[in-house]
Amino acid sequence: MKKKITIAIDAMGGENAPKKNIEGLNFFLSKNKSNNDFIIHLYGDENVLKKEISKFNISNDLIKIVHTEAVVSDEESPLTAVKNSKNTSMWNSVKAQIEGGADISLSAGNTGVLLVISRMILKMMKDVSKPALAGLWPSKKGMSVVLDLGANIECDDKNLVDFSEMGAALYKSIFPNQKPYVSLLNIGSEEIKGTEMLKKAYLKLKDLSNENNFLFNGYIEGNELMDGNSNVIVTDGFTGNIALKTAEGTAKFLVDNLKKSLSENIFSKFSLIFSYFSLKKFKSKIDPRKYNGAIFLGLNGPVVKSHGSTDSIGFYHSIDLCYKIIKGNLMGQIRNNLNHLDARE
Amino acid sequence: MKKKITIAIDAMGGENAPKKNIEGLNFFLSKNKSNNDFIIHLYGDENVLKKEISKFNISNDLIKIVHTEAVVSDEESPLTAVKNSKNTSMWNSVKAQIEGGADISLSAGNTGVLLVISRMILKMMKDVSKPALAGLWPSKKGMSVVLDLGANIECDDKNLVDFSEMGAALYKSIFPNQKPYVSLLNIGSEEIKGTEMLKKAYLKLKDLSNENNFLFNGYIEGNELMDGNSNVIVTDGFTGNIALKTAEGTAKFLVDNLKKSLSENIFSKFSLIFSYFSLKKFKSKIDPRKYNGAIFLGLNGPVVKSHGSTDSIGFYHSIDLCYKIIKGNLMGQIRNNLNHLDARE
Repeated sequence: MKKKITIAIDAMGGENAPKKNIEGLNFFLSKNKSNNDFIIHLYGDENVLKKEISKFNISNDLIKIVHTEAVVSDEESPLTAVKNSKNTSMWNSVKAQIEGGADISLSAGNTGVLLVISRMILKMMKDVSKPALAGLWPSKKGMSVVLDLGANIECDDKNLVDFSEMGAALYKSIFPNQKPYVSLLNIGSEEIKGTEMLKKAYLKLKDLSNENNFLFNGYIEGNELMDGNSNVIVTDGFTGNIALKTAEGTAKFLVDNLKKSLSENIFSKFSLIFSYFSLKKFKSKIDPRKYNGAIFLGLNGPVVKSHGSTDSIGFYHSIDLCYKIIKGNLMGQIRNNLNHLDARE
Repeated sequence: MKKKITIAIDAMGGENAPKKNIEGLNFFLSKNKSNNDFIIHLYGDENVLKKEISKFNISNDLIKIVHTEAVVSDEESPLTAVKNSKNTSMWNSVKAQIEGGADISLSAGNTGVLLVISRMILKMMKDVSKPALAGLWPSKKGMSVVLDLGANIECDDKNLVDFSEMGAALYKSIFPNQKPYVSLLNIGSEEIKGTEMLKKAYLKLKDLSNENNFLFNGYIEGNELMDGNSNVIVTDGFTGNIALKTAEGTAKFLVDNLKKSLSENIFSKFSLIFSYFSLKKFKSKIDPRKYNGAIFLGLNGPVVKSHGSTDSIGFYHSIDLCYKIIKGNLMGQIRNNLNHLDARE
């Protein structure tokens, strides 16, 4: 019998935990009734979790609770995390990849602490110089992968090449029928534009580009992030984080203004009746919960970070992402892509 | 008699020039009928310009045409610009600040060439290490200034301090009744976050912050760019350009999706009748033409770059920006702020 996909969830991490975590899990289970190739390991206080679980009709065959009392606090600093967070639900859900047979770990808790302890417990992959945080980004053609979103504020060309190989592997694991088109984020599309680091990475990626691993699309500018012509967009963690937050802020600004406009008088309010379903579809298309879940790449096992403030639907999407990633053989894809680097040397 | 504000316009630069330039000028003149404190110098082919001008009722007292035959081509590279663009309408409109009594120059032509020849003709201000490109950005509370948007891909802490002083001066010249609140764009708001360059600039700005020049608000993240709590946002040119383009791309993505949603069926189309005025107001609030015009700061005279592809309304906003900047005594404000730096040393 094939081993089941095992997802280790920190059930106590994030706002409104464990309520939203269990609600999200229930949603995931009801969406995957016909799949019996997975099992969920829940890390947290057994009594509390059992109480939440009892609200739903969840089969005991699909889950396993691993009792863990301590929880990482939101105030915990990454500097003292290793000392203070041992044997918390977060720690144990990551450790589950070493000791508990888990394939992937998911937490909505403290981001800084999760990055530090994941790196400590899982260790970096051989030949990867820096790990990266990758996220999903909506585009005209579907969804793209963007990395690094903030794990490394300073990078060199070697890091950007690693990120490209890992990002392409991630994209292939989530979208097995699509080809990864890699681009470097820059301030112009001509070959002479940008920093020395980018120019060096550009030449290396041009050289490495091939049908089996990824196809290199050159540079793109910020306004092309969402046009979908490239679906793996690579940048350093500082720039990636600024781009991500700027996009979030811009979307919020526009949607707030639109809401205000559409409720400012009786006529516009009336118009909402007629546009209700269309606006609902619009809202669904740009719903950030659908893109919830940043993937920590470059360690000897994948860790997914859910937004702390997301709700049960957002948490469901993170669980679904974990499931897809493992089903799509992320670690195998990464190893394959990194071998491709070795072969070249 | 006080000298009139003299705006030198490259009437031949940008798409659809000189048609949109003259239409935009006409719009500016009709909005400023009661002001007689300015004169517009137009650089371009006299016959062509006269023909465009004759379409409107423009008084000869308000404009002066300076005949210039050559035009900078869109394909011209910044590298060969100095050799090839002498005596073009762009060159002469910048040179007008040295020889023609102009206070400010405006062009919608080739950006790279404009930056290079402006720097060559006007020279850098004493004590400014690098010039910067500043732009206007919509916010919840009105408008902010963001710089650098791409003049310098690599910066140090001294540059960021210069940009803060110049950006604050620009903000005060455009909004004389407001106080400039300066922030550095970063990937976290805690003092320990970010690059070494940012940390050094942070300490210097904290020290320089005062009621007369600017008030330092610390770090902000990308999602706070539009909340208006800081109205002068400072970053290096690489990050600023990525943030600007990402915001533009996100806005386009959302508005395109919204349009598609609101025209997808008969009900949503019907709703447009009732929401027409509200959506018009929404559109106007986020209309990029209102923010058209990037200001090149740090030279011995201000140069404004209009988007090449904007229309006459966008070009009007750039002329209006030039007028406001000079009325608000930009150069005096910059010198005053830079003296503030000297005083400290």
